[in-house]
Amino acid sequence: QVVSPIECLINDNYTVQCLKSSNSDEMVYMPFEFLEKYFEVYGKMKHYDGYDRFEFLQSNVKVVYKPEQPYTYHGAFMNFDSYNVEIRERVKCVSGVYGVPVSTQWDANGYFYPIQISQYGMSHYSKNLFQKPPKRNVYEDGQISSQVRWKATNRYCHYESILDKETDSHVIKFETPETIPLGNGVTMVLGNTVEHELSFDIKFTANGSLSVILDTNEKSKQYTIHYITNSALIDYDGHSSVFYGIGPSTNWRHISRDLVTDIRKGLGMIRRKKNKKIKISIQKVSKIILRGSGLIDNITLATYDHMAHFKDACNWMVANLDMASGGWKMSISRVLDEFEVIKPGWVSAMAQGQGLSMLSRAYYIYKEEQYLEAMAKALLPFSIPSKEGGCRAKFLDKFVWYEEYPTTPSSFVLNGFMYSLIGLYDFKSLLEDKFAISEDNNLPSKTVGVVDIQATYKTVKKLFDDGMVSLKSMLPLYDGGTRTFYDLRHFAFRKPPMIARWDYHTTHLSQLALFATISSDPIFEKYFNSWQGYMNGKVANHN
Amino acid sequence: QVVSPIECLINDNYTVQCLKSSNSDEMVYMPFEFLEKYFEVYGKMKHYDGYDRFEFLQSNVKVVYKPEQPYTYHGAFMNFDSYNVEIRERVKCVSGVYGVPVSTQWDANGYFYPIQISQYGMSHYSKNLFQKPPKRNVYEDGQISSQVRWKATNRYCHYESILDKETDSHVIKFETPETIPLGNGVTMVLGNTVEHELSFDIKFTANGSLSVILDTNEKSKQYTIHYITNSALIDYDGHSSVFYGIGPSTNWRHISRDLVTDIRKGLGMIRRKKNKKIKISIQKVSKIILRGSGLIDNITLATYDHMAHFKDACNWMVANLDMASGGWKMSISRVLDEFEVIKPGWVSAMAQGQGLSMLSRAYYIYKEEQYLEAMAKALLPFSIPSKEGGCRAKFLDKFVWYEEYPTTPSSFVLNGFMYSLIGLYDFKSLLEDKFAISEDNNLPSKTVGVVDIQATYKTVKKLFDDGMVSLKSMLPLYDGGTRTFYDLRHFAFRKPPMIARWDYHTTHLSQLALFATISSDPIFEKYFNSWQGYMNGKVANHN
Ligand SMILES: [Ca+2]
Ligand SMILES: [Ca+2]
Repeated sequence: QVVSPIECLINDNYTVQCLKSSNSDEMVYMPFEFLEKYFEVYGKMKHYDGYDRFEFLQSNVKVVYKPEQPYTYHGAFMNFDSYNVEIRERVKCVSGVYGVPVSTQWDANGYFYPIQISQYGMSHYSKNLFQKPPKRNVYEDGQISSQVRWKATNRYCHYESILDKETDSHVIKFETPETIPLGNGVTMVLGNTVEHELSFDIKFTANGSLSVILDTNEKSKQYTIHYITNSALIDYDGHSSVFYGIGPSTNWRHISRDLVTDIRKGLGMIRRKKNKKIKISIQKVSKIILRGSGLIDNITLATYDHMAHFKDACNWMVANLDMASGGWKMSISRVLDEFEVIKPGWVSAMAQGQGLSMLSRAYYIYKEEQYLEAMAKALLPFSIPSKEGGCRAKFLDKFVWYEEYPTTPSSFVLNGFMYSLIGLYDFKSLLEDKFAISEDNNLPSKTVGVVDIQATYKTVKKLFDDGMVSLKSMLPLYDGGTRTFYDLRHFAFRKPPMIARWDYHTTHLSQLALFATISSDPIFEKYFNSWQGYMNGKVANHN
Repeated sequence: QVVSPIECLINDNYTVQCLKSSNSDEMVYMPFEFLEKYFEVYGKMKHYDGYDRFEFLQSNVKVVYKPEQPYTYHGAFMNFDSYNVEIRERVKCVSGVYGVPVSTQWDANGYFYPIQISQYGMSHYSKNLFQKPPKRNVYEDGQISSQVRWKATNRYCHYESILDKETDSHVIKFETPETIPLGNGVTMVLGNTVEHELSFDIKFTANGSLSVILDTNEKSKQYTIHYITNSALIDYDGHSSVFYGIGPSTNWRHISRDLVTDIRKGLGMIRRKKNKKIKISIQKVSKIILRGSGLIDNITLATYDHMAHFKDACNWMVANLDMASGGWKMSISRVLDEFEVIKPGWVSAMAQGQGLSMLSRAYYIYKEEQYLEAMAKALLPFSIPSKEGGCRAKFLDKFVWYEEYPTTPSSFVLNGFMYSLIGLYDFKSLLEDKFAISEDNNLPSKTVGVVDIQATYKTVKKLFDDGMVSLKSMLPLYDGGTRTFYDLRHFAFRKPPMIARWDYHTTHLSQLALFATISSDPIFEKYFNSWQGYMNGKVANHN
């Protein structure tokens, strides 16, 4: 095809070199290099078998959650089964003490972030629903035949199978001098080349450690991960040893570690480069070595152990709920552009909501009162204004809003609000489902633990209903006609809107898709369709 | 340059043929034919002396009003000097009786539309400020020497110069039988090849007509426009005669006609094709012929007579103000998509505002109490809810709004609201300027005509101030991040926004530019800049 260059003047401002076909049609072609910057669109040359094709995309996100079945409080949480919270760069590591991720997003020292912890828990809960049952290899359950795998470093190191009264199970009792170096003690060969999720029940009676030796894909390189009874978060010696503190507890506890994540986060302490993931992979889980004194049972390597991570996340949330305020209080400051700095101790409606969503599932599975009690308590901040330590705001004195960030002035972040409503919906649904309660019936008042079921239901229902009225009324204010808005800060500060980047836009879509399955109001389907259109370059009408 | 075709897949949906350069850089070029539809942008190949250039534009409107000097109530109205209201296709013609345009936009039969009439008046007022003084040829002012130009068709037709007592001026008295055909009577040769604005003072004492014979650019084609003392609006015989009714009045009146517009609108009665303007032009204003009985004076051909049109518009507005409601009531229904139909008799804040802007200028120029009285009256609808016949709305019970269309639910049309505020500002400024009044002083109460100046000032100031609070607060709600919104109907109906087409967008910009010169609040300059950016493809930030 014969073309000639033609100068193109853009908005009377600058020129771009284009092409003009030499046919009489005077077709003009503009370079994609210009278009992608000017319109912020995406494109890539793809090489297929036998032909090339250029693939143009309006948005850089493709996956939108659109459930076939109605959403339920005990099913998967949205599309969180596709999340892999712990490998994110802004996660420092999974805490050895609590089994939950530690965030570095807004504080490089690392801190626990209730929203991230809930998302971690719910991603594992959701994965567990969709994946086929894990392959599990139990290497030790304390029964007689298994002791052949063990050996001791020296004659001061002992191990034996005993019957543990507390667990009513046979377990391995181990004992080594505290003075022997890390990596020595009582050893068991595993030699597993397939599964990387290591779990065990352990009860230290004195300080000690459990070390795992890993063969990796780095040339003849062995690494050891040491899980130690101290409170250090994570460390790496720069050579071949990674360290996790698992805390000084002397109780029985179940520990489950994703060894791939643990080794990667460890090496990442030193090696990490911006936006470069550590790619090391494990070729063999070679052996484990126990040091110190204690009991161990159920040493297992499995393809995954999602429910252990879910439970860790749930338990952290229960343990870290502030009993006075009912808030999952944030330990970090939050700086949001022109808003006043939010000082540590703030409460997020999104954290409250995600906590409710996760603990509703926890109660559904484990039926433990502690989850119900935490949820009832966690409703409190929804009724307390942001300025008084809660997360409640109002739009023009008219529409109740639950704030992801308790900013001054109110910011009305949309996705966080919708997450909070989903949490309220989950808890409400749980109560309806488990206690046969509904708006209409007047069952005698019933108390579970310290929770007055009727009163709690009334509260959560009102919070949800009020929020849904606001959501339906205010959704139009987030519609830019070509994109959606992240929040309403432009209203507070009288400036142009903060457009939601495409992954927040798809979060909006996913949330609308969820609401469309639980609400009979056509608004959700309607907005889902027009907002999905924006991802394909369809825009709102003009007059 | 050598290129090869490459298939391009758009949003996983359809393909477009693109070009790929054969260099190693794999540059891809997309056809503008696709881009202009996909992105709704504009482009044209321009052929200059010696080279061609393709000119790409984000928007199809370029001119934005951005005054160098502060806006004043007696200066030009925005960029209305560039308006040419009467030639618009939706204007049937300029009424011979009232000298104001007749609209066909929402009713093909034609109707008077106060907004259009004000815009017509203000465009002429503004043109008059910017154009150099008109060239005027007075063909007859009743003085002795001029009678040589006249001749009579037959002996029953008379003319003479007399002294008219009423006007204390010499005038021509004419008298012909009523039975002679149109186009006969008393004739004066003009033979003017330059000026096309015909004006005269006339007082018919019996039925009659004034006919103008025009040579046009159509091959040896003469047309005659007959101005007749009846009430027909406009007619065309399909051959060479166009007819305008000028009403049966027997008072002295000043009539000023743009002969080009009159002939074009006349021929357009039959010839008009959709979106095709009638292009006939006048080569010579050949002669005028009087028929019937009456007096005539000051027969003039000029380059323009803007102030005559301005005054006609002002007088129409005064005469057509509903004294009970203070509204310029609309005679037509208005159907706005999903809103309830607005029945005839409605009031528009934009009409009220544009009326105030025009009559403020009228009072400034002519100092006639009737204008002041009309303006004071015209404030009434601003305090009456739309549902009760006024134009006042409220956004979420918080922000006062003056509605261009008194819809149910409220529509919050932005440009109409800003026009209404400009009108209030003009009247307020007039009072401050002409009566040395201000917020602080406590002058003794003063009455002009029936207008209590102090009370009226207090009212207009409060209406303006309240409206400005609303405007500043709600401007952010019209910002789509890439375009502006025409109104807030999306909020009422929970649907995607109505994006303002580029000419409404530039109206928004022009209005912001005006407010920036009269308000110290930086919001107007700020929004002007970001919204102007949208016209060049700049968009709001995303997170
Ligand atoms: Ca056992
Ligand atoms: Ca005279």
